[in-house]
Amino acid sequence: WEGEFFPGISHIKYEGPSSKNPLSFKWYNAEEEILGKKMKDWLRFSVAFWHTFRGTGADPFGAPTKLWPWEDGTNSLAMAKRRLRANFEFMEKLGVEFWCFHDRDIAPDGKTIEESNANLDEVVALAKELQGKKFHLLWGTAQLFLHPRYMHGAATSSELAVYAYAAAQVKKALEVTHYLGGENYVFWGGREGYQTLLNTDMKRELDHLARFFEAAVAYKKKIGYNGTLLIEPKPQEPTKHQYDWDAATTAAFLHKYGLIGEFKLNIECNHATLSGHSCHHELETARINGLLGNIDANTGDPQIGWDTDQFLTDIGEATLVMLSVVRNGGIAPGGFNFDAKLRRESTDVEDLFIAHIVGMDTMARGLRNVAKLIEDGSLEELVRKRYSSFDTEIGALIEAGKADFETLEKKAMEWGEPKVASAKQELAEMIFHNAL
Amino acid sequence: WEGEFFPGISHIKYEGPSSKNPLSFKWYNAEEEILGKKMKDWLRFSVAFWHTFRGTGADPFGAPTKLWPWEDGTNSLAMAKRRLRANFEFMEKLGVEFWCFHDRDIAPDGKTIEESNANLDEVVALAKELQGKKFHLLWGTAQLFLHPRYMHGAATSSELAVYAYAAAQVKKALEVTHYLGGENYVFWGGREGYQTLLNTDMKRELDHLARFFEAAVAYKKKIGYNGTLLIEPKPQEPTKHQYDWDAATTAAFLHKYGLIGEFKLNIECNHATLSGHSCHHELETARINGLLGNIDANTGDPQIGWDTDQFLTDIGEATLVMLSVVRNGGIAPGGFNFDAKLRRESTDVEDLFIAHIVGMDTMARGLRNVAKLIEDGSLEELVRKRYSSFDTEIGALIEAGKADFETLEKKAMEWGEPKVASAKQELAEMIFHNAL
Amino acid sequence: WEGEFFPGISHIKYEGPSSKNPLSFKWYNAEEEILGKKMKDWLRFSVAFWHTFRGTGADPFGAPTKLWPWEDGTNSLAMAKRRLRANFEFMEKLGVEFWCFHDRDIAPDGKTIEESNANLDEVVALAKELQGKKFHLLWGTAQLFLHPRYMHGAATSSELAVYAYAAAQVKKALEVTHYLGGENYVFWGGREGYQTLLNTDMKRELDHLARFFEAAVAYKKKIGYNGTLLIEPKPQEPTKHQYDWDAATTAAFLHKYGLIGEFKLNIECNHATLSGHSCHHELETARINGLLGNIDANTGDPQIGWDTDQFLTDIGEATLVMLSVVRNGGIAPGGFNFDAKLRRESTDVEDLFIAHIVGMDTMARGLRNVAKLIEDGSLEELVRKRYSSFDTEIGALIEAGKADFETLEKKAMEWGEPKVASAKQELAEMIFHNAL
Amino acid sequence: WEGEFFPGISHIKYEGPSSKNPLSFKWYNAEEEILGKKMKDWLRFSVAFWHTFRGTGADPFGAPTKLWPWEDGTNSLAMAKRRLRANFEFMEKLGVEFWCFHDRDIAPDGKTIEESNANLDEVVALAKELQGKKFHLLWGTAQLFLHPRYMHGAATSSELAVYAYAAAQVKKALEVTHYLGGENYVFWGGREGYQTLLNTDMKRELDHLARFFEAAVAYKKKIGYNGTLLIEPKPQEPTKHQYDWDAATTAAFLHKYGLIGEFKLNIECNHATLSGHSCHHELETARINGLLGNIDANTGDPQIGWDTDQFLTDIGEATLVMLSVVRNGGIAPGGFNFDAKLRRESTDVEDLFIAHIVGMDTMARGLRNVAKLIEDGSLEELVRKRYSSFDTEIGALIEAGKADFETLEKKAMEWGEPKVASAKQELAEMIFHNAL
Repeated sequence: WEGEFFPGISHIKYEGPSSKNPLSFKWYNAEEEILGKKMKDWLRFSVAFWHTFRGTGADPFGAPTKLWPWEDGTNSLAMAKRRLRANFEFMEKLGVEFWCFHDRDIAPDGKTIEESNANLDEVVALAKELQGKKFHLLWGTAQLFLHPRYMHGAATSSELAVYAYAAAQVKKALEVTHYLGGENYVFWGGREGYQTLLNTDMKRELDHLARFFEAAVAYKKKIGYNGTLLIEPKPQEPTKHQYDWDAATTAAFLHKYGLIGEFKLNIECNHATLSGHSCHHELETARINGLLGNIDANTGDPQIGWDTDQFLTDIGEATLVMLSVVRNGGIAPGGFNFDAKLRRESTDVEDLFIAHIVGMDTMARGLRNVAKLIEDGSLEELVRKRYSSFDTEIGALIEAGKADFETLEKKAMEWGEPKVASAKQELAEMIFHNAL
Repeated sequence: WEGEFFPGISHIKYEGPSSKNPLSFKWYNAEEEILGKKMKDWLRFSVAFWHTFRGTGADPFGAPTKLWPWEDGTNSLAMAKRRLRANFEFMEKLGVEFWCFHDRDIAPDGKTIEESNANLDEVVALAKELQGKKFHLLWGTAQLFLHPRYMHGAATSSELAVYAYAAAQVKKALEVTHYLGGENYVFWGGREGYQTLLNTDMKRELDHLARFFEAAVAYKKKIGYNGTLLIEPKPQEPTKHQYDWDAATTAAFLHKYGLIGEFKLNIECNHATLSGHSCHHELETARINGLLGNIDANTGDPQIGWDTDQFLTDIGEATLVMLSVVRNGGIAPGGFNFDAKLRRESTDVEDLFIAHIVGMDTMARGLRNVAKLIEDGSLEELVRKRYSSFDTEIGALIEAGKADFETLEKKAMEWGEPKVASAKQELAEMIFHNAL
Repeated sequence: WEGEFFPGISHIKYEGPSSKNPLSFKWYNAEEEILGKKMKDWLRFSVAFWHTFRGTGADPFGAPTKLWPWEDGTNSLAMAKRRLRANFEFMEKLGVEFWCFHDRDIAPDGKTIEESNANLDEVVALAKELQGKKFHLLWGTAQLFLHPRYMHGAATSSELAVYAYAAAQVKKALEVTHYLGGENYVFWGGREGYQTLLNTDMKRELDHLARFFEAAVAYKKKIGYNGTLLIEPKPQEPTKHQYDWDAATTAAFLHKYGLIGEFKLNIECNHATLSGHSCHHELETARINGLLGNIDANTGDPQIGWDTDQFLTDIGEATLVMLSVVRNGGIAPGGFNFDAKLRRESTDVEDLFIAHIVGMDTMARGLRNVAKLIEDGSLEELVRKRYSSFDTEIGALIEAGKADFETLEKKAMEWGEPKVASAKQELAEMIFHNAL
Repeated sequence: WEGEFFPGISHIKYEGPSSKNPLSFKWYNAEEEILGKKMKDWLRFSVAFWHTFRGTGADPFGAPTKLWPWEDGTNSLAMAKRRLRANFEFMEKLGVEFWCFHDRDIAPDGKTIEESNANLDEVVALAKELQGKKFHLLWGTAQLFLHPRYMHGAATSSELAVYAYAAAQVKKALEVTHYLGGENYVFWGGREGYQTLLNTDMKRELDHLARFFEAAVAYKKKIGYNGTLLIEPKPQEPTKHQYDWDAATTAAFLHKYGLIGEFKLNIECNHATLSGHSCHHELETARINGLLGNIDANTGDPQIGWDTDQFLTDIGEATLVMLSVVRNGGIAPGGFNFDAKLRRESTDVEDLFIAHIVGMDTMARGLRNVAKLIEDGSLEELVRKRYSSFDTEIGALIEAGKADFETLEKKAMEWGEPKVASAKQELAEMIFHNAL
């Protein structure tokens, strides 16, 4: 394959909201400053190599539908390199500076660990070159779920040899992430969970998982890698129950095993909703616990009970997401990676661009809306006022942990029946939606 | 009201599985020994005063349907005492030794805290007398959700005066629970959560909740009360999101605020399923974290998204519940309280008995099934064997936290492609279901 | 109660999107013409008397929180009339011309049918007067779910006497709806369903329901009432399973019992999502079957499994709703009634206005967006093109039901492997969201 | 491949409930008579070729795990025939007389329709021979979802050429089903639905689907095929929304297009629960509408939102399923096919047997429980009594459609406030569960 991969498509430009050109940005203007930072610095968009370049369109009931012109039907090293070049041309044209990958997405599995590592090294060398100074690795990770050896899990497999194999694979993935300057390293425990408790020793599996994470932390330090370690919660699928169910469950695990300072979270909106929470809830839970590390910017379908990994196009949702990010003072060294895939039925090459553009525009519009909300100030004021009774002497005593039940009882008797103000939910919703 | 409350109903007796008498036990035989303990000591059944004696049959679309003959239509102190006597006659006839209550279930709200406390004292004195040596209090609690003052929460209310009021109420509830010899004290944070994040300062609310729990622990110790403090997780309803979402979320909270040793959990099956977990999952999560304190023995409806609080009649489910209890070495000082209500359309007095009998029989049958499973031994053996590769030198190294990535990589390279055994899920299910 | 009910609030005016005044419309401009009709004629907003004037804020775990100043704590006839006057002042100030009610919302239950009817007549006479020429009744209905007599259903009750009672009540409700010039009459079968199939003869109940509807149709004709009869599907709550589960289930019932031409549907968004569909799906299903009669304009919470009846504030959702309405050529003689309630914690009188304003503005904004989409035309063009292969001779043959399998097989063999175009879902989403 | 496929496994025998042998039946005794029929005649078990012989263990996140010894890694005609022989040996050893298949499961796709048909003919000739007199085809069907040409649907594809292709494929599948003496022919519209309404003309698609079914009915009659045509409802997956959502939706469609007498339904338990209903609800809905044709005997996981297709092991559920079948007077010419797959992690050949055995035993145990319930009679009596007020003169008038609202009102006034009896739900549950 010689020359351009996307010959008909030039650099995607910002043309503003009135443009009808599908291959333009209407809201995302990379260099424009919003709330004191460039849009690209708030958003730090990343292409997810697996969905964009390895997604085949297969589903549990259907065969692949994507037949990109640059694919030759093999999983050879040569094909891996060609695909990588397509990725960087795609990023260049789209105006995205970050990418992220699983080890086995970018380089073929070998027959042995040694052979797999050699394949990976060869592709990674090319990646380093293609990155140059312009492109950056948001994060790397190891694919510990596709191969049948991982069918019972990796760090939580019932088989010792699989645990060791996974350790070898993560070791290498940490090394190459370090080599490529990856700003983060992600753990998604797709098969770290169970299909039925009847055949599972949950305690033993969780203990193993903790040991595995401890070893990863130790190795990271040993090789001098300073990137953030991220855990990506997901409630289920492919397993019936995954151990990193949601942000709170993952926090409980980190606390219990003394790992709380070593990891942050990679929150995915579709995983959030599958776990019974809003995406905003998961982001806020991560944020107020100092755990917000990165965002998988996608969405599910509110009527669907599995991970659809769609590009987010809902403006309200995007505004809530950006509200958490702005409150967090930004997301760096994390970013927004599009853990989002083209629909199976979207089979044109240009659909890859259209999907990313609408995804980026939606987040950008969310950011613009947050700026409006913050300028307006009335939503924040509403919340501040709601809790103002605690901005008092007794309130301070309570918040300092110095108000015992006897003191409080005395006050309560003195004050009589409390006055309780309206929560003004509809007003809050009005303010929020008027900013969209 | 003089004389018997349930004149047509005599003591419920064990008549064995072939009995067709609805007013008899077919599986629960209180004094029979199973797995080394009397059934009543494994099960420690408790009547939940609120559902059984305060349930009216009202629902969001319908008025009360229960018109028990002993009710006079008032919420007077006299009525409160009469109802309490009905409760003890009910327990006596049913053969249940424990009860549990919220403060406002058993005694009417007064106009002031002082008046409410006086009402409570009067009823509690009668309760103490009626308990005698035969009956025991499984747990007491404060009702912090029904009164409009608690509409924004109690410990997490946006109103300082409500926080203080709740403190006064819990202080008193701890005192009367102690006075009645209550073996546990429960916190169910029905309104400790939010309706929308738009008007909520979640971090501040959670901090307040932690301060409240700290003060409760301090007061408990001060008055010399040794009962177990229990938190009852529930994901939502009445709020959109409750802070004690599930066992793991509650554990994360307890860890973060340094409260982990002071509380155990009261797991309710219907709350478990509303949070997206199986009941067995929540029980096991509590158990392996040393947090299994008590069980609200009920069930939801698998097609319904709210808390139906039905009596559990599913044998398989009951067997899983009892599996956790037996593995825990029993549930004392906790027990099984029937946080279960008669269906709105069940309006005969005898339905109160029938519902409790089928609920008790179902748990008893679960216990008998667990005994069969344990005697048979093949399910435990299946699980033990699955993990036997870790019962080795390297396995021990891993479990001791001494296997670093380099050691494991070396082993993995040496061993080559792992052999991975079948998980035998269908066999496990066959063994389990054959024991039912 | 003399004078104004809402003394501090004047007529709500349109002030445009930049207004920060909560008591103004930002998008709804009643007389403005959009797509060839005035906004008020597309939208035909209606206040739902039950939520707005009878909602107490009670929930399954909490007592009433709303204590409107005009309420005297009774359910007397005098109070009923005063409340009705509040309703018409509210409509006047809000600029809404329609209202709707259940019989028992507006007038107190009597001890006998005769007494209830007399109460109703007295209130209805006042309503007629207050309506004048300015206000209209969108629909009336009978409340067949709150009274305990209806606990097993009304037309599907297991009790014959309840069936007859319900018939008497619907007869009267049809009469007063006719008297007040109601443009529609609604059946919501809140308790027409089952709690468990174990005690239910579903076939017999469905047969009874059909007989009941037949009798209603006959009576409507007999009294010369020409309003549309509407059935409001809901999947469950308060029952485990309601017979009018969704639009398709209701259509199947109407077909089976030969009632298909006599009824249309009242689609509620929150009921739609509880049944596992998007609101747009239910509206489109009704529309393409000629059954779209009226819309309960509300929304649920995507994480909540019960009917929250919130005011719709989501712009995308509102745009989809209005797309169905515009495709339907409008909704008259139906309209949009706000089957939406203030949150329990919203306790200021002005919250009643704020909630309706944001609900009306959201639908108005949806209508404006649809106008943009239609003017732009590219979404419709995308859909038209997708199916253009059927705009051919063979396509016409198929659509006329004249293409048999042999003909088609011959063609298929002749044509060889079909070319299949991209579905362009992301492009469709981009076009849609750019119009918001 | 020569000789036996399952050399270590002999005929599975009935050994009774106390047997610990996993490779024996504990409850299914084919020739034993229950309720007047042999167990095998009530149950008419069928192996589903696709799951049992084409299931690979792949899932959306994982590669195949099943590597049966008889597979050579190809999809050749020779392999197809060998696999078919494995199927009949499996049936023989398991003691199952029926099988069912999709066209493309049993024979490889060719490059043209003609080539695919030729492949199919060759395999079908062998199937005819292997069937002999001992084995029967429960049903055949065409696989209209796996090939990418069907990505937008088959009969509802936006592409005319795909519609024609599907017609050709169904034509052939009807022919071979007829040739093999198939007792039924099934339509599962896996991709007959939509991914988003934004790009879909739902009305046009549904019209096409109706035309397709009409043509199938006509062709069936033309070739003299007398088997039952079955539609298999499923709510979603792989599409966001499938047109045959559930039993009621499918009935509405059949009614609307005048197809109601030509089709019955194939109810799958896992599809039922995904659509928000209990399996029993779907079976009863089909039964009372005369549409119960066949059962896909499987189950989902109550916490999982996709189709897990597990073997049913729940005794209560199986008893409810059999209750519908017994009330229907049996299921013939339909049967129970195991649309159930081994878990991905169950990789031993014997697991195929174990899974089917526990599935068969569970259904058999359900049948035995129904016999107990019917002998006991008290559940039926409870239901009969509930509705007995309709077994009166007025009740008969109502049920004959002769009771108008005026008559009923008169009666209601005469009778006064109705007495409403308890629904006895807990008693019904007690009776039901005591029979398990």
